[in-house]
Amino acid sequence: MAQAAQTPTADNEFDRDTSVTLREPGVYDADLSEGWAILSAVNGGYLLAIVGRALSDALPHPDPFTVTAHYLTPSRPGPAVVRTETVRGGRTLATGQASLFQYEPDGTEVERVRVLAAYGALDTLSDDVRTSVKPPTLPPAEECLGTEDGPAAFPADSGFTRRVVVKLDPETTGWAVGEPSGKGEVRGWFSLADPREPDPLSLLLTVDAFPPTAFDLGLTGWTPTVELTTHIRCRPAPGPLRVFVTTRNLAGGYLEEDADVWDSADRLVAQSRQLARAPREARVPGAR
Amino acid sequence: MAQAAQTPTADNEFDRDTSVTLREPGVYDADLSEGWAILSAVNGGYLLAIVGRALSDALPHPDPFTVTAHYLTPSRPGPAVVRTETVRGGRTLATGQASLFQYEPDGTEVERVRVLAAYGALDTLSDDVRTSVKPPTLPPAEECLGTEDGPAAFPADSGFTRRVVVKLDPETTGWAVGEPSGKGEVRGWFSLADPREPDPLSLLLTVDAFPPTAFDLGLTGWTPTVELTTHIRCRPAPGPLRVFVTTRNLAGGYLEEDADVWDSADRLVAQSRQLARAPREARVPGAR
Repeated sequence: MAQAAQTPTADNEFDRDTSVTLREPGVYDADLSEGWAILSAVNGGYLLAIVGRALSDALPHPDPFTVTAHYLTPSRPGPAVVRTETVRGGRTLATGQASLFQYEPDGTEVERVRVLAAYGALDTLSDDVRTSVKPPTLPPAEECLGTEDGPAAFPADSGFTRRVVVKLDPETTGWAVGEPSGKGEVRGWFSLADPREPDPLSLLLTVDAFPPTAFDLGLTGWTPTVELTTHIRCRPAPGPLRVFVTTRNLAGGYLEEDADVWDSADRLVAQSRQLARAPREARVPGAR
Repeated sequence: MAQAAQTPTADNEFDRDTSVTLREPGVYDADLSEGWAILSAVNGGYLLAIVGRALSDALPHPDPFTVTAHYLTPSRPGPAVVRTETVRGGRTLATGQASLFQYEPDGTEVERVRVLAAYGALDTLSDDVRTSVKPPTLPPAEECLGTEDGPAAFPADSGFTRRVVVKLDPETTGWAVGEPSGKGEVRGWFSLADPREPDPLSLLLTVDAFPPTAFDLGLTGWTPTVELTTHIRCRPAPGPLRVFVTTRNLAGGYLEEDADVWDSADRLVAQSRQLARAPREARVPGAR
C-alpha cells in the first residue's frame, strides 16, 4: 500500500477532489469535481492525478515514474470508477494499467481514459544528478500575468482557472491580445490556489495546466489531447514550480507539446510530451 | 484491414523478420529473429515494429500516430504471439492495446512488452506544416563513422549492427575512444542494410537503433528501456534518415532519451522519448 494514496490531506482542495475510495481490490470510486472543468470537460491533468492516485494505492510502489494516458471520450463532472491491473510487480519498478470509466444513464460504463504506467519509489533513488541543462530564465512571478490581468486564457466561468495559479511570462502572452509570437512557447509559474506543496501526484496535474501552445502559434479553439506521457523524475522541493511548454512541430493537423517542470531547487522534476489535435479554427497572423 | 500489414515486401529483411500471421481475430503469431538481437536480447525497436504491424492489421486505421511501449521482461529470439485489443474505434483515430508474449518451456505465456497506441491514416492529413524548427546540420554520410570504422558501438557479434546502417557524426563518437563529450548527444544517418525505403513501421525501429546517449555522458553498460513513446508525424520521403538523440536529464539512476527523425525532404517525421535506467557502471571522465 502506497503512502501517497493513504495520506491525502483531506482539507486541501486538490487532495479532496482527487481522492479515491477502494471499492474492491484494484477498483476505486472517484467523483470528478466540476471545479476542475474547463467549459463542460474535465481537465486532463486532473483526471491523471485521480488515476495516478488509484495506481499509487494498487501497485507495490508509491510514485509515478512514467505515466501514459490516452484520452478516449470527454469526461464530465460526476461519479467515475478507476479499474487497475498490476501488469508486473518488480523489486524497484512495477508496471500498471488503469482505466477511468463514467456511467451512462442506464449504468453502462464508458471508458474515458486508459493509462499505462511504471511506478517506483522516488525517495530510494540516488541524489546523483548529471543533468546537462539548466532551468531557463523566467521573470519573477510578480512581473508575470495571470487570468486576472487581462483577457482570460480560459473562459472566465471555468472552475479550473480558480483552482490553479498560473502566472505567465509576458513574452508568451501576446496571443491574449491578438499578437501571438509564432514560436509555440508558453511559460510561467505554477502553484495551487488552495496552497499545497507540489508532490508527484500534483505534478501530473501541472503538466497539463497551461494554455495551449497553439495559441502562441496563432491558432484558437479546442486542442484535444490524444496522448500524454509524463515522466516524474524527482520529488519536487517545496515552493512554486516553473513550467516551460514548447511546440516544435505543428503539421498535418497535429502538434506535440513538451512541458518541462522545474522546482524551487532547480531540479527538472517532470518532463511531459503530448500529442494533440490542432485547433480547427486557424487564425494565423503571420505565423509560418 | 490496413495496407501496411497486408503488403509486406517479403523479399526484404525487415519486412520478412517483422511479419505477423493472423491466428485468430486480433491474435498474431510472430517469430523474433536473432538477426535483430544485441547480445542475447532482441532490440526494443524491432519488437515495436512487430507489435506495430499487428496493430496496423487489427485496427481500422493503418498508421501508428503515437505508440507507447513498456518493456517488461527481456525478449529472446524465437516464437512470439501478439494479442491485440481495439480500445476505441473512431472516424479518424483508433486506440489499440497489444501485448507481445513468448513461451516458457511448458507453454506458459510470458509478457514481454505492453503497448498502448493510437492509429490513424497519415495520407489523409493535410500538408499544412507550421513547424518552428529546422533540421540540425549533420556532416555528409561519407564523413560519418560506422561500426566498421573503429571500436564497435555494439559487440561485433550482434546481428543488429549488420542489419542497420548507422553512420555517426564524429563529434558524437568520442566515447568510442574513451573521450565522451559529456553532452549526452548522439546523431547520425540511418538506413536499413537490406535496402528499403522508410515507412511508419520502420520508423518504430529507427528511434531505438542508435547507441545510448549514456555513452556520450561517460557511462558504459546496458541501458534498459522502461518506456518508449514514439509519435509518427508524417510518412517519410524516400532516402536516408537523420536521427538526433539527446539526453538532458540523467539523475537518480534514470535518464530520458529524446530522438528526432528527419527525412530527406526535411520533415520531422518521428519524435520519440524513452525513460531508461542509467547503466550501473559509472565511468565518468569529467562529465558533471
